[in-house]
Amino acid sequence: MDLEAITIDIGTSRPLVLLNTVDAEELGAHPLDRIRIERNGTTTTGIVKRTDELVEPGIAAMTEPLHHLRGPVTVTLAGTPSSVRYVRKKLDDIELQSAEHETIVRDIYENRLSDVELSAYVSAVYTNGLSLEETKHLTKAMSGIGDRLTWDRHPIADKHSIGGVAGNCVTPIIVAIVTEAGVTMPKTSSRAVTSPAGTADVMEVFCDVEFTTDEIVSIVESTNGCLVWGGGVELSPVDDELIRAENPLSIDPKGILIASVLSKKQSVSSTHIVIDIPYGEGAKVESLIEARELADDFKRVGTHLDMDVLCAITHGTEPIGHGIGPTLEARDVLSVLEGNGPEDLRLKSLELADMLLDHCDIDASAADLVDSGHALERFRRIVAAQNGDPEITTDDLEPGSESKTVHADRAGIVTRVDNRQLSDLARRTGAPRDSDAGLVIHRAIRDEVDIGDPLYTLHAENLGKLQEAETLSEKLEPIRVRTRTDALVEHR
Amino acid sequence: MDLEAITIDIGTSRPLVLLNTVDAEELGAHPLDRIRIERNGTTTTGIVKRTDELVEPGIAAMTEPLHHLRGPVTVTLAGTPSSVRYVRKKLDDIELQSAEHETIVRDIYENRLSDVELSAYVSAVYTNGLSLEETKHLTKAMSGIGDRLTWDRHPIADKHSIGGVAGNCVTPIIVAIVTEAGVTMPKTSSRAVTSPAGTADVMEVFCDVEFTTDEIVSIVESTNGCLVWGGGVELSPVDDELIRAENPLSIDPKGILIASVLSKKQSVSSTHIVIDIPYGEGAKVESLIEARELADDFKRVGTHLDMDVLCAITHGTEPIGHGIGPTLEARDVLSVLEGNGPEDLRLKSLELADMLLDHCDIDASAADLVDSGHALERFRRIVAAQNGDPEITTDDLEPGSESKTVHADRAGIVTRVDNRQLSDLARRTGAPRDSDAGLVIHRAIRDEVDIGDPLYTLHAENLGKLQEAETLSEKLEPIRVRTRTDALVEHR
Repeated sequence: MDLEAITIDIGTSRPLVLLNTVDAEELGAHPLDRIRIERNGTTTTGIVKRTDELVEPGIAAMTEPLHHLRGPVTVTLAGTPSSVRYVRKKLDDIELQSAEHETIVRDIYENRLSDVELSAYVSAVYTNGLSLEETKHLTKAMSGIGDRLTWDRHPIADKHSIGGVAGNCVTPIIVAIVTEAGVTMPKTSSRAVTSPAGTADVMEVFCDVEFTTDEIVSIVESTNGCLVWGGGVELSPVDDELIRAENPLSIDPKGILIASVLSKKQSVSSTHIVIDIPYGEGAKVESLIEARELADDFKRVGTHLDMDVLCAITHGTEPIGHGIGPTLEARDVLSVLEGNGPEDLRLKSLELADMLLDHCDIDASAADLVDSGHALERFRRIVAAQNGDPEITTDDLEPGSESKTVHADRAGIVTRVDNRQLSDLARRTGAPRDSDAGLVIHRAIRDEVDIGDPLYTLHAENLGKLQEAETLSEKLEPIRVRTRTDALVEHR
Repeated sequence: MDLEAITIDIGTSRPLVLLNTVDAEELGAHPLDRIRIERNGTTTTGIVKRTDELVEPGIAAMTEPLHHLRGPVTVTLAGTPSSVRYVRKKLDDIELQSAEHETIVRDIYENRLSDVELSAYVSAVYTNGLSLEETKHLTKAMSGIGDRLTWDRHPIADKHSIGGVAGNCVTPIIVAIVTEAGVTMPKTSSRAVTSPAGTADVMEVFCDVEFTTDEIVSIVESTNGCLVWGGGVELSPVDDELIRAENPLSIDPKGILIASVLSKKQSVSSTHIVIDIPYGEGAKVESLIEARELADDFKRVGTHLDMDVLCAITHGTEPIGHGIGPTLEARDVLSVLEGNGPEDLRLKSLELADMLLDHCDIDASAADLVDSGHALERFRRIVAAQNGDPEITTDDLEPGSESKTVHADRAGIVTRVDNRQLSDLARRTGAPRDSDAGLVIHRAIRDEVDIGDPLYTLHAENLGKLQEAETLSEKLEPIRVRTRTDALVEHR
């Protein structure tokens, strides 16, 4: 059927096409049926919504993901994509073949899967797992789609944390150190999956993070590094679709985790990579054995794709840094580069930076590069290259104006600072979507507290979200204070 | 925030609220955030879409599920519903408590879960299963929502097939027999889950199937029975939301299956129930052991809810009847009631009807009731009571005009008639949404065939869908013909 495509402004991530009921009937298209849209020889998939009023017969109104389609188009019915059968297979815990994962990745990329189907795939991988072979295939399929950055330099350093630890914003500090030491580090980061702030969310407080591949190349040429959002360019773009299904459920299945991380690294042609795997009670990986298994899988899949992967297994039982949420973490980062800041954030950043420099065969000291102020200078150059204000100070980084401090209701010592509960709380304040929202931690494990001492402060952009977070905080105990006796023996 | 609610016509099953970007910003509502909408003291949940053009500031445009909201409304941000945490728990294979299942069911009913979250729940139950306790809780939670039909008669007979067998439309025949024998049978049926036609889809070929509870009561009072769609009234309405997530994936997890069936039975106050569990290669339940386990679970959950459940474990390795698809199955049903029709459909219907009559302590013969023409007369009375044409004949039941017959490419005997492949094919022709689409089977297991003999005929409403089905049929072998030697030994 030949129709005229116009754009319609409904904020939706799905490629919806509004058709008049008369046209939809003639086409034989029921609501949520998929259609193939041809324009100038290229084909796109859309999902049908029917309307009697909003759109005239003869018109196909395209929502945002299809806004590039304007003018005459040819529309035909499309069947169920074959990847739906493979999703079903994975739900049945049957190992998928390489070509089947390629089809799934391709169909996700071309928006052929509905939310129900996409979520079923992610849920199936979460509950049934992926074998090492499947993980390799998924990684390869994901990195085979989208753009690829290539460099005339060697080595290309990279770093990634699997997350699960609140705060923990070491990446901007590491990039500043490593690039200042002369190693190229074109860092692409994710936005938050299960945390209240991804590195890209934090960097966005300082400067832009969405760039074209050409712009990224030019930033890296002038500063030796960058700190951009990977989803803003077409670097393994399927990752962001998977995150869209993982995010509401706060899940991050191992096979998808490895594939997401390494396909991004492959797309930016990284050669030497350090992966931070925090483990422990309340972290994403709970046991040392699990952490070591994951490290081995990362290394094996890396080798399969010609990347030299090292893993750092780190302590993940409590947050790193004081702030949780984009602006609050940005303040910690800047503070460390200025020679102050939370001690744990400084130490972990230096350790990982030294590890990466060593991995790249570079003889330099991370501590020297920070203490001399050179790393800070480098960071400001990168911020400037990404259209940010290089003169920004920690005073400019103000958290959300609605705030509420929670105090200790007894004296004792802090026996636990719970990553998940603090992350849940920070997300409830509105982070990461509200960049100024989040919370500040005032006490660490083993600290002594008096009754009435501040434990943490919630920050939100508006009173509604602050109240949501307060309601949740009354049900949780993210910073646990016990008397010396109770700390030794828990009565249940 | 106070807004004026208007309706907007976008065909969507989700309760979307379009807000102008200015209002959405002020509210702090990002796309896909949930909002609480208050009007005249009642609260509904909606999902935010932002728009710059379609809606003016001050206006909240409601899509169809919210069309009852017009005029002044108060809108506030709503947090993530707590059931999302329970979905996550189920993904982690942790047993849910009664109250947690109640919350999930309530949130599904009130449209608080996104497609991603709903699909994750269904996928989690599919892969991790529900315990018997969880199944009881889910059933009770589901039957606790919506309307309830009550009767001043006893017993109330009911029948259900768990499906998985193509065709198999015994229910209208059984209802005609049982009600004619004097037992009340207010039958509510589902539309298709994984099959190309549910009983409700087939009955809709004859007459209306969507009625209010009052109308159902009056139909049953005049004819002693009915054959209506359960989702058309508020009888365990959450079932249909679950089906919406199961359907695209063709999955039907056991716990949800039991809860869906028995909560519906509970809502219509059934007292004596026969459940048909077809088993065998290619059926929904593959082994006899599995079928017996499922039968026991049905009986246990039934007892827990004060219903007397019997199960019939039947052979499910090949389709019952000739037609697959609403109109084609309707033709088989009418034909059997006229004393003709497919032999297997007649025999199974009579057997189950006798079982149900016996279960209700009624001394009558199903065969006599059909052969005397009384069951047909009763069926015509029910069709008339449901606004259908009681004079309808099999000649009136014409399948889709676009058709294609597939012929045997060799001589031999039929070794397999594959339910799943035939169902997939019939769905690809457009069934059940296109009621005239589907296929007709010309040969059964053990039949002799010559080269060129017709095996099955595809019917579709338009050429596009017929071609989709033809393409699939070339990849499948739903009716397998082998020489006598090959039939004994399969070479691989």
